Amino acid sequence: MQQGSDSSRSPGYDPAPSSSRALIVDRIRSTGTLSRVELTQITGLTAPSVTALVRRLIDDGLVDEAGRGTSTGGKPRTLLQIRATARYVVGVHLSYDSLTYVLVDYAGGVVARWRREGPGEDSDPEEVVERIATQTGELIDRAGIDSTLVLGLGFVCPGPLIRNNGVASAPPMMARWVGFPVHQRLEERLGLPALLENDATAAAAGTRLTTSHDVSVMAALFMSEGIGSGLRLNGNVYQGAHGNAGEVGHICVQIGGPRCWCGSTGCLEAVAGPATVIAKARAAGLDLGSHRRSGVAAFAAIARLALTGDSRAEAIIKDSAAWLALGAQAITNMYDVQLLVLTGPAFAVAGTIYLPILQERILSSAFGRSVTPEVVLDERGHDAAAIGAALMMLRSDHAVSA
Amino acid sequence: MQQGSDSSRSPGYDPAPSSSRALIVDRIRSTGTLSRVELTQITGLTAPSVTALVRRLIDDGLVDEAGRGTSTGGKPRTLLQIRATARYVVGVHLSYDSLTYVLVDYAGGVVARWRREGPGEDSDPEEVVERIATQTGELIDRAGIDSTLVLGLGFVCPGPLIRNNGVASAPPMMARWVGFPVHQRLEERLGLPALLENDATAAAAGTRLTTSHDVSVMAALFMSEGIGSGLRLNGNVYQGAHGNAGEVGHICVQIGGPRCWCGSTGCLEAVAGPATVIAKARAAGLDLGSHRRSGVAAFAAIARLALTGDSRAEAIIKDSAAWLALGAQAITNMYDVQLLVLTGPAFAVAGTIYLPILQERILSSAFGRSVTPEVVLDERGHDAAAIGAALMMLRSDHAVSA
Repeated sequence: MQQGSDSSRSPGYDPAPSSSRALIVDRIRSTGTLSRVELTQITGLTAPSVTALVRRLIDDGLVDEAGRGTSTGGKPRTLLQIRATARYVVGVHLSYDSLTYVLVDYAGGVVARWRREGPGEDSDPEEVVERIATQTGELIDRAGIDSTLVLGLGFVCPGPLIRNNGVASAPPMMARWVGFPVHQRLEERLGLPALLENDATAAAAGTRLTTSHDVSVMAALFMSEGIGSGLRLNGNVYQGAHGNAGEVGHICVQIGGPRCWCGSTGCLEAVAGPATVIAKARAAGLDLGSHRRSGVAAFAAIARLALTGDSRAEAIIKDSAAWLALGAQAITNMYDVQLLVLTGPAFAVAGTIYLPILQERILSSAFGRSVTPEVVLDERGHDAAAIGAALMMLRSDHAVSA
Repeated sequence: MQQGSDSSRSPGYDPAPSSSRALIVDRIRSTGTLSRVELTQITGLTAPSVTALVRRLIDDGLVDEAGRGTSTGGKPRTLLQIRATARYVVGVHLSYDSLTYVLVDYAGGVVARWRREGPGEDSDPEEVVERIATQTGELIDRAGIDSTLVLGLGFVCPGPLIRNNGVASAPPMMARWVGFPVHQRLEERLGLPALLENDATAAAAGTRLTTSHDVSVMAALFMSEGIGSGLRLNGNVYQGAHGNAGEVGHICVQIGGPRCWCGSTGCLEAVAGPATVIAKARAAGLDLGSHRRSGVAAFAAIARLALTGDSRAEAIIKDSAAWLALGAQAITNMYDVQLLVLTGPAFAVAGTIYLPILQERILSSAFGRSVTPEVVLDERGHDAAAIGAALMMLRSDHAVSA
């Protein structure tokens, strides 16, 4: 998985902050406010190291002192917090019918979001990179941000990626991207460090935990044009050996089933993903509003029909949900999570139909667990991948330069 | 997962050594020989800390100096190695038709292995614990080991476990174990620290990497009476939130399929596991040699028929393999591993039939990976779970007491 030129990765988990400086910034950011003493305890760094690193971060304008903590008997401790306006990152999610941009501040808050028309099927990667460069500039201008404060870009798209390059093999919409050096082109064209990530993995990284209980092991089930998932342990996403973990869309749910673009047969994505839902809806003669509609927009049209009483649309979506439930069951069985979040644009529009069906399957199939995993919808599902990409860039060593 | 009274576990990965002392012993053991300088580099501990800890380990008779490394220009470095005869651990694997014992020395070598008759279906946990206590004593005597050097016991059985207790819900053979405090009873009866683990997870921990290339992300697909899997990253097994990850036997491979003991339907284990293979063989009138045969012994009889030309037996096993291939595909898609090892008693007897069928599915379904995962048979498959349990105990903090 790409993270600029950072190659210091332990296998499996990336991109956890690797420098002590990045670690301190990451811990303050994820907690909100922390004292130096708490930082020492959390990071395992020595007190003098923490003091020196914090001093430099304050001098560099990335961290501020922010009042005092509650007295625990001794001198009240000074709390540190991130200076939200110190730096910004851009997140970009490419899909067939939209390019989603988010601008995230240094504290991880989303300060701007923007959706533009996607490049459609069979997109030309050179043209898309050019478009991203232009539109990123527009996003920054419109948000009124000093562009010199933008430290990098996180870019996510469908399909499995290969390290330090781009798309390794392609879902139908990405055919011309195979072998295209997207990472290098983005960095050249934008003049910024870039991070490449699979959309489902980024969504897992970016999901904000809205549950009240303590969750350290969670997964995201992501649906856009395709289906994927990501596992997150204590904030770090699981990457596997090659950055292609969590490909739940390509587990086989039907032996001898339909052939998938990936080359296998009976894949969950081929049996019940959005493209299949759309094909079934068209075959049933449902009116999707426009001949050109495809991708998430067409799926959204079917979802709207289902939610407003069209029984054929409802049946098609519920059938998809019955199969997606097998994917959810595979995730919870293989990963043993406390929480499963349904995210991505397809769940953002149709999640209320999918959710109870997935919950029921999980409940009936969970065994030997002291707590059945909770299944919830992501409130930010439509922008989850873009936000996740930005947050992953924010955690990198690039994000703590002076 | 149990590890004596060790509760200092980070979620997801256990039981990586947590004390510096245990970490040093573990690194020397897994490398074979290491110098103090290499230890400093690998562990991140300071040179004075390493020197002091190594001094104590040598004084305690756990580590020895063992010659000098190749000169790299300066003074040749003294190499450290584990004193294999310093301590021993016992591994016990309980299954329906056998109790497998292994005795492992301090360097991780298997010095004795012993298989005894299993307790059969509907075993009485009190009686089994008593049997284990007695037979463990016999194992140690027969191996001629000083029993005061035995530092603990690793115990594995089928079924999902709950922390600090025992079996949470039960496959048919373990019905009376639900709620039985097996960990406490074992420790009381043996007077030793005990570690409880699921059999598939232990097998993943114990698999010896026999491939020549560097493997940091691997999984074990384990088949005994049931089917399970384990993921291993850099030597540490993935535990999930509750110690019940990798339950590939209970992913759904057939929507609306047969009901499983776990309460779900269409589970891989119900569709194609050993119990189903045995039922089909009986229904086909195959001669399994004895009416009483069940569990792995009956499965082994069918495998032998298949391997010696019985076409009906071969067809039944190949059908099972076609479904197991879906499980293998789920593992590689969700975990993104470099290596998948087929292990456990059922693969030990029938692996040559399963292997090419699983390899073919993995090859045809791997996508976007620079290297297709390798699929191999475990040479020690029959004892893998017991060995893994012993090795997990060996890595614990209990294993470095003076």
